[in-house]
Amino acid sequence: MQDDDVDARELDRMLQRAFDASTKIYQQRGFQRRIGFGKKPALVSVDLANAWTRPGNPFTCDQRAMDGEIIPGMQRLLKACRAHGHPVIHVTTAYEITDPNAPFTDMGLWQCKIPIEVVDLQRKELWAIDSRIAPVKGEYTLLKKRASAFHGTGLGGLLRAAGVDTILVTGVTATACVRTTICDGLADGFRTIAVKECIGDRVPGAVAWNLYDIDAKFADVESVDTCVKYLEGAGATAQAAE
Amino acid sequence: MQDDDVDARELDRMLQRAFDASTKIYQQRGFQRRIGFGKKPALVSVDLANAWTRPGNPFTCDQRAMDGEIIPGMQRLLKACRAHGHPVIHVTTAYEITDPNAPFTDMGLWQCKIPIEVVDLQRKELWAIDSRIAPVKGEYTLLKKRASAFHGTGLGGLLRAAGVDTILVTGVTATACVRTTICDGLADGFRTIAVKECIGDRVPGAVAWNLYDIDAKFADVESVDTCVKYLEGAGATAQAAE
Amino acid sequence: MQDDDVDARELDRMLQRAFDASTKIYQQRGFQRRIGFGKKPALVSVDLANAWTRPGNPFTCDQRAMDGEIIPGMQRLLKACRAHGHPVIHVTTAYEITDPNAPFTDMGLWQCKIPIEVVDLQRKELWAIDSRIAPVKGEYTLLKKRASAFHGTGLGGLLRAAGVDTILVTGVTATACVRTTICDGLADGFRTIAVKECIGDRVPGAVAWNLYDIDAKFADVESVDTCVKYLEGAGATAQAAE
Amino acid sequence: MQDDDVDARELDRMLQRAFDASTKIYQQRGFQRRIGFGKKPALVSVDLANAWTRPGNPFTCDQRAMDGEIIPGMQRLLKACRAHGHPVIHVTTAYEITDPNAPFTDMGLWQCKIPIEVVDLQRKELWAIDSRIAPVKGEYTLLKKRASAFHGTGLGGLLRAAGVDTILVTGVTATACVRTTICDGLADGFRTIAVKECIGDRVPGAVAWNLYDIDAKFADVESVDTCVKYLEGAGATAQAAE
Repeated sequence: MQDDDVDARELDRMLQRAFDASTKIYQQRGFQRRIGFGKKPALVSVDLANAWTRPGNPFTCDQRAMDGEIIPGMQRLLKACRAHGHPVIHVTTAYEITDPNAPFTDMGLWQCKIPIEVVDLQRKELWAIDSRIAPVKGEYTLLKKRASAFHGTGLGGLLRAAGVDTILVTGVTATACVRTTICDGLADGFRTIAVKECIGDRVPGAVAWNLYDIDAKFADVESVDTCVKYLEGAGATAQAAE
Repeated sequence: MQDDDVDARELDRMLQRAFDASTKIYQQRGFQRRIGFGKKPALVSVDLANAWTRPGNPFTCDQRAMDGEIIPGMQRLLKACRAHGHPVIHVTTAYEITDPNAPFTDMGLWQCKIPIEVVDLQRKELWAIDSRIAPVKGEYTLLKKRASAFHGTGLGGLLRAAGVDTILVTGVTATACVRTTICDGLADGFRTIAVKECIGDRVPGAVAWNLYDIDAKFADVESVDTCVKYLEGAGATAQAAE
Repeated sequence: MQDDDVDARELDRMLQRAFDASTKIYQQRGFQRRIGFGKKPALVSVDLANAWTRPGNPFTCDQRAMDGEIIPGMQRLLKACRAHGHPVIHVTTAYEITDPNAPFTDMGLWQCKIPIEVVDLQRKELWAIDSRIAPVKGEYTLLKKRASAFHGTGLGGLLRAAGVDTILVTGVTATACVRTTICDGLADGFRTIAVKECIGDRVPGAVAWNLYDIDAKFADVESVDTCVKYLEGAGATAQAAE
Repeated sequence: MQDDDVDARELDRMLQRAFDASTKIYQQRGFQRRIGFGKKPALVSVDLANAWTRPGNPFTCDQRAMDGEIIPGMQRLLKACRAHGHPVIHVTTAYEITDPNAPFTDMGLWQCKIPIEVVDLQRKELWAIDSRIAPVKGEYTLLKKRASAFHGTGLGGLLRAAGVDTILVTGVTATACVRTTICDGLADGFRTIAVKECIGDRVPGAVAWNLYDIDAKFADVESVDTCVKYLEGAGATAQAAE
């Protein structure tokens, strides 16, 4: 964690106790079900662009998690997707009109809450996907304006047109763009999987409690190992089915 | 809280320390801005229907908060809206095809995560709005199928057609339907206000961390007192402007 | 046709000449392609409710086409869907707040163009699906507020969740609800088929020019015969694939 | 008209007779109402990009109308918007993955009907807005993937965030992108105005019958003169109201 005022391990312990108490309630009530993997997956990677993955920006996320887990995990997922022909969508965020005093702006009202005026469409170095996981030919880079990769984009239609029934979601932040993407993905009828080690944030506790909420109600939280195994198997199945 | 295994006050203290550490980061970076109240408000009350507000259902929420704060707060908000002619939308959730083995269902895939098959459209006593805050003539009851009151509904269009620029969001749960409604409301271009005492859940900690995330990035969390004062003032302004 | 001032056959001849001229241009340019049938169909039947199918309402459509072609064609399609377990969605339209002077209404702004205040949710006899094609258990009745069966509804998500990739669209009117449903269905990633004899309207020429536009750019216009054959075959395929 | 096989004047006469017969029915039934201009307008100009406005492309529209009416009309509308600070959105269409055999594509299924693979994102000369009406600083260029400027884009949210209540729609084609944009704009709660002389197509009759349908049910069709007068007045009103 990036802040010394809160003891990360103590916070985790306390949160775990809250989660355990919640899990009892959820289990009694029939929540926390497994949605499972479907037959045709796509990888939806949210905001792993330089303003979020690299140091020095207001949007910079926890660098230890980024370099140690998120990027390496993404590299494994990408390798499996590329080997088996699964669609990959790299999502990023940038704005054409970033003057908050302009008569109108594609930022909508979000700049009234967070500093999105920073991510100017002219400054491609900020919103370009991190070079360590750079898109290759045949992968799609989706420019969004809101938190969710589905809201105000053609993502749902594009995935449906391709016959995709399952989305593996990675990226940052757990609090905002990843969580809203997952909630919308489920609502749009896709089996949603949150890839545990590949989801980050910039403040203490946020990854833990958001993944907890997500797993209880919106998506299965699964490890990179499980997801890579699935992507390799799904590839085999998809080819056999043709 | 409904569970004795976690000491509610200890959890709150620990969460508060996490929030304080996060707030430092957010403040340095330019997050946690105030979106403010606009000129024409509407009240959007999410899932304050019997299956959520009354005991004995898998969806039942924390009853102490429901009876002690949420319902009384809603009564004050409704009174102010009714006195000043502000639109009120009561949102609820129910399904026509609740057999999980049916060839298809309006539950979509959500029943793969949570027990929504319980809320059958035939059993109106479950999805009817709680009688303590029952809709009156001129108020709208919106039946939704997903978490968000905006996703897969005409809510955005209806509010825009009425010239509404601000939504005050109340109801349950903080984790799911309230949070997704707020995120979508902001994305759709409405000033979003989360009414603090009128938002509940059914597990420990969830209201606290979800309101914290919401206030940092998606909506201003404001008290019932502040909201009632605004609704009374906005009424005056709206009438003066005609 | 319902009006004697325009000679229906002369109009058809003239329109056909316009269509022939357009077809030359479209063919040279690569329009009017065939989208084809997919693997898993659903029937989406739009506004075949009493206010549209029966006499005496502002929304009443051409009765000769309704009784002679649309309803009989629908009966054949329904029989095939029911025999083979294909999802059927019956779409209808009604409003909770129909006073045009109300502070706000679920009619949005559409009542500024057409008389939708007529279809009051309280008057179920108006918006109930025509009894000759009444829904059976396992079929879904979708209440919409706008022209398109997709706009502001959960239809896209519901169909995706069920694995549907193809929609057969029927109903009224060609000008409004059928055409917008087809355009949105394609945009959402579904193979869209307009069932020729099962699409009607209430004014001369409208069915002809709307089906012409639709076939050029948005959906394949196919006969009931072809669609029934497909539904029976798709059933076989679907069962074999399991 | 671009084709000699159909006599344009004879077609217009015949269509006019069909419209007259329809208008009698619509008037008796309460259709063809006026939606009127609201208080805060925006100009939404659809696909007036080189592939549509200039010769030599499959998407090229009727050049006589383009050069003689649409572009000159747009220049007058733009002048009025710029003088009075009204938001202008230039909409265009292009695709990142245009190989129809790619495993997936942002074209979705639309390339199964029309030749959108032509408009490759790499070839900016095709999708750039026509230089005669080129965007100026403060105007927004919206890249869409489907027919409607609202479907799968953030347009609705952006306009709502700016307080816009009225959209003036121009561009091509009447059959596809203009008509779907208008239908969605109304459904999303905006007063929709179709600017008569600034809407074009590429086949005979299509502008006439689509504008007829639109005016009957979805938007008021108004002249450039009326719209310019309104834009000038709305500017005055907007300034007075501040």
